[in-house]
Amino acid sequence: MATPSNKLDIPLQRCPDLYIKVCTPKGRGVYATKTIPAKTVIDVCPVLVLGVEENKSHIEHTSLFHYTYNWPITDFDGNKQVAQAVILGLGSMFNHSTQDQNVVWERDPERLIITYRALRDIPVGEELCISYGSHLTFKDADAPVAPPPEEELEMFNQIQFD
Amino acid sequence: MATPSNKLDIPLQRCPDLYIKVCTPKGRGVYATKTIPAKTVIDVCPVLVLGVEENKSHIEHTSLFHYTYNWPITDFDGNKQVAQAVILGLGSMFNHSTQDQNVVWERDPERLIITYRALRDIPVGEELCISYGSHLTFKDADAPVAPPPEEELEMFNQIQFD
Repeated sequence: MATPSNKLDIPLQRCPDLYIKVCTPKGRGVYATKTIPAKTVIDVCPVLVLGVEENKSHIEHTSLFHYTYNWPITDFDGNKQVAQAVILGLGSMFNHSTQDQNVVWERDPERLIITYRALRDIPVGEELCISYGSHLTFKDADAPVAPPPEEELEMFNQIQFD
Repeated sequence: MATPSNKLDIPLQRCPDLYIKVCTPKGRGVYATKTIPAKTVIDVCPVLVLGVEENKSHIEHTSLFHYTYNWPITDFDGNKQVAQAVILGLGSMFNHSTQDQNVVWERDPERLIITYRALRDIPVGEELCISYGSHLTFKDADAPVAPPPEEELEMFNQIQFD
């Protein structure tokens, strides 16, 4: 029983060199207390997938909608749909940056987790930022050009390091 | 910049000896991969506080309501109210147990976090469980007696170790 024995079981990994800064121009943000090497696992976050209907009827009308991620599901008829998921971890705390993105993420729909990794070396004191992609619910102040289409962004976020 | 300099800033602590078991009678649950000594910080979770009105109009009608915690707020007129908060971390993954509770939690309304600590030594392979208190949204199968009133429970969860 010491270690997970089922392939679906999920070892929780979290980089220990992080803190939340409360007062920033973007609100709360996650920062590095030590240099974090490229490819380091930053956080493994379980997710809570919301129903398509409850999302449309309710969640979209609340402040929580700014925090949810697109999440692929297959309905009872075998049709692929895009639902929304609440990320139960630092994935809901990372701010957005197109120019200074230093964290990428990868969904695991089978195990209901998202894994966040350092895209490059992250120096001490730097904020950890992701790209929200097409789920951006505000004007992107630091985008130098139009953001890439969702599929291209997905591929970028799901970059394989090895 | 190496360490938080503002008293409001929050060092993120997470016990590394944890995994999520996907298939249990209660659904997903958090388990210990090593013995965790009493008083160990299990997780420091940022929270997202929902508005009282949006909670009543929307969140209460969704599956998310089973995951939210009571959260004390003071409104613009200085009146104390109980809002709901989404816990962005393992606090949303711990199952409930009255008899086998081994984790306690403490809210920090100023810094918008909840800290979870081991109530006693937690042996390898044991599930980590909290008490949901008055926010229990289902019948408590393992309660030997009526659950304690919310205030008493609050005091228990906010137990001071030292």
